[in-house]
Amino acid sequence: MDLFINQDELNRGLRRVQGVVEKRPTVPIMSHVLLEAREGALQLRAGDGVLSQLSSYPAQVDRPGVMTVEAAKLGAVVASLSDREPTVRLTLGKGQRLTLRCGKTEFNLTGTDGSDYPPLPGRDDRGGLELSGGELRRLIEETLFSISGDENRYGLNGAHLEQVDVGGASRLRMVTTDGSRLSWSEVPFDGTLTMGRRMLLPRKALQEVKKLLDEAEARWRVDFGERSATFQSGELSMQVRLLEGEFPDYRLVLPPSHKRRVVLEREPLLGALRRVGIMASDRNNSVRCAFEEGRLLLSAQDSKAGEVREEVVADLDGAPLQTGFNARYLQEILGATRSEQLQLDMGDALDPCIVRIPGRDDCLFVVMPMRLD
Amino acid sequence: MDLFINQDELNRGLRRVQGVVEKRPTVPIMSHVLLEAREGALQLRAGDGVLSQLSSYPAQVDRPGVMTVEAAKLGAVVASLSDREPTVRLTLGKGQRLTLRCGKTEFNLTGTDGSDYPPLPGRDDRGGLELSGGELRRLIEETLFSISGDENRYGLNGAHLEQVDVGGASRLRMVTTDGSRLSWSEVPFDGTLTMGRRMLLPRKALQEVKKLLDEAEARWRVDFGERSATFQSGELSMQVRLLEGEFPDYRLVLPPSHKRRVVLEREPLLGALRRVGIMASDRNNSVRCAFEEGRLLLSAQDSKAGEVREEVVADLDGAPLQTGFNARYLQEILGATRSEQLQLDMGDALDPCIVRIPGRDDCLFVVMPMRLD
Repeated sequence: MDLFINQDELNRGLRRVQGVVEKRPTVPIMSHVLLEAREGALQLRAGDGVLSQLSSYPAQVDRPGVMTVEAAKLGAVVASLSDREPTVRLTLGKGQRLTLRCGKTEFNLTGTDGSDYPPLPGRDDRGGLELSGGELRRLIEETLFSISGDENRYGLNGAHLEQVDVGGASRLRMVTTDGSRLSWSEVPFDGTLTMGRRMLLPRKALQEVKKLLDEAEARWRVDFGERSATFQSGELSMQVRLLEGEFPDYRLVLPPSHKRRVVLEREPLLGALRRVGIMASDRNNSVRCAFEEGRLLLSAQDSKAGEVREEVVADLDGAPLQTGFNARYLQEILGATRSEQLQLDMGDALDPCIVRIPGRDDCLFVVMPMRLD
Repeated sequence: MDLFINQDELNRGLRRVQGVVEKRPTVPIMSHVLLEAREGALQLRAGDGVLSQLSSYPAQVDRPGVMTVEAAKLGAVVASLSDREPTVRLTLGKGQRLTLRCGKTEFNLTGTDGSDYPPLPGRDDRGGLELSGGELRRLIEETLFSISGDENRYGLNGAHLEQVDVGGASRLRMVTTDGSRLSWSEVPFDGTLTMGRRMLLPRKALQEVKKLLDEAEARWRVDFGERSATFQSGELSMQVRLLEGEFPDYRLVLPPSHKRRVVLEREPLLGALRRVGIMASDRNNSVRCAFEEGRLLLSAQDSKAGEVREEVVADLDGAPLQTGFNARYLQEILGATRSEQLQLDMGDALDPCIVRIPGRDDCLFVVMPMRLD
């Protein structure tokens, strides 16, 4: 391998792989990045057994070749190079040493043979769709936060994807739940084939795909199979092994109707939740909510530190209600949707609360209230 | 206690005390701030037994009073208040409850009786000086980084202050060392009295005083005694108990002359140290330095990851020399002084190296080289 590559391109490529490689790998090579120099391009590949990221950057390749090197170390080296030197030369020498030259800097890095790196897993695409980077980002942002963090909640550790029909038009819906709340978000489905029965994307895959969505206008293609999904845009792709496990039939938790509807404004509600949350000292961030004519009273108390009471304007349609919520759940919905208003459709004190964004039919959230003594 | 105070002023005051109070106090009250409402002002006091910070903010005091409350909690509460409400009301109620009202927000915080808070330690001022915030900041920044972090290095855990005569003019010199390097920085001394024999300021005091230096033009008065020093500017003061222990006679390590002088440029040197430091994997950040005619060659190697070589332009006056330095020591001098050049006055490979900033006679650094095999 002997090639010349633009420093910024190489740096961008290596930044992209850092989240994908394993930090504390059981097999050392899983912390490496695979470098493959081909005609006119350097291809980088990194993964952790569940994700495989593949990307390609223009390069002047004088001698093709393939090798691996520790991704964090190579990333630190390239990030440290002088801004004044636009070009980096990479040469594979004896004993799998990678020589990196840039201006008057020369690194010799210990690498391994490219054939030691595990092959890319097979794909089993059965269909897919195209969407914009902005749509894909919205799907992920509006659902990522309610994936269960409990590794033992089999079936809840990922985001469920399905195709739904809304008024005769097909949509792709992403759904997540941790048992106490649920989020869904939808985009138009212009795809060609139905998806498999199970479609559960691991949390880390969504986190890493989200990092790649720096250009909202870029077009992305997502292909689905029974065991894998692939996100692809230009020279960049992320292949994901789907999670095992059955996502629950989440439609069962959706109440068919509501008795009360409240509309709240973003900024006052966020401020109130932040303040009341300071005294919500239990691990559930329990906040007492009293919905009354024209206002919502929020309060919390901590047996040691004290207590807090707060009031925000609320447009209530229905009878007054006292209940409790985890303050963080509402904060995260406001954070993910960036919406100016929240609409809460409630039954009685312990019934699931449906949270909607007024004016939008392509997302929906469910929050379970809490019993407060 | 019953008073009205500007929210921003109260917030600023509470931010200032956070670094001073004890985070994990053996006596709980040392994590509290003392609030004292007097005619026209709210005074805040906080400390940890070594430092005592006192500051005062204009307030409309309807009923004077004194109490303490947990500083971190009150700080979080005030920081969370709505930007739209300029005024905060603080009222001391029954059972040492502090009621804080701001707009439609009401907190009730558990406090303790003000008389439980330890009294301010006595001062034993024998003299002092005045200087600008900018001068005080420079004194601290140019020395703080080489205070020993080893709690057992009795006498090296603080910054030594003394009055020196430079060409007939009096200066205040601050000196720090950790045994492997030394820093000093000087400002003109316009004071009135000689200082005590021992004058060792704890590291935390300097860190906290530095945080208060947000206005470079503010005038500061520093008073010294045998056991205490006080930094004061307007309504803000920090009283410090001096460290016990004898600062070593640092003049002994200063070589009387040099055999070689090298001048290096800031940006290329910083870049080279950063890159070579990546491969300097031992805990001393050992970098091999070969000073030659017109250039400095830097190199480092890590038995696992590989090696690096780097070259920067250097103006050498004297014979070539090979030696080793801790890369971080030189980086920290460049960081603290922000200087465009470094001048290294060296003897032989293991002699102390004097680092000067060309054009400045009010600071000086000593770095011990390292033996490299």
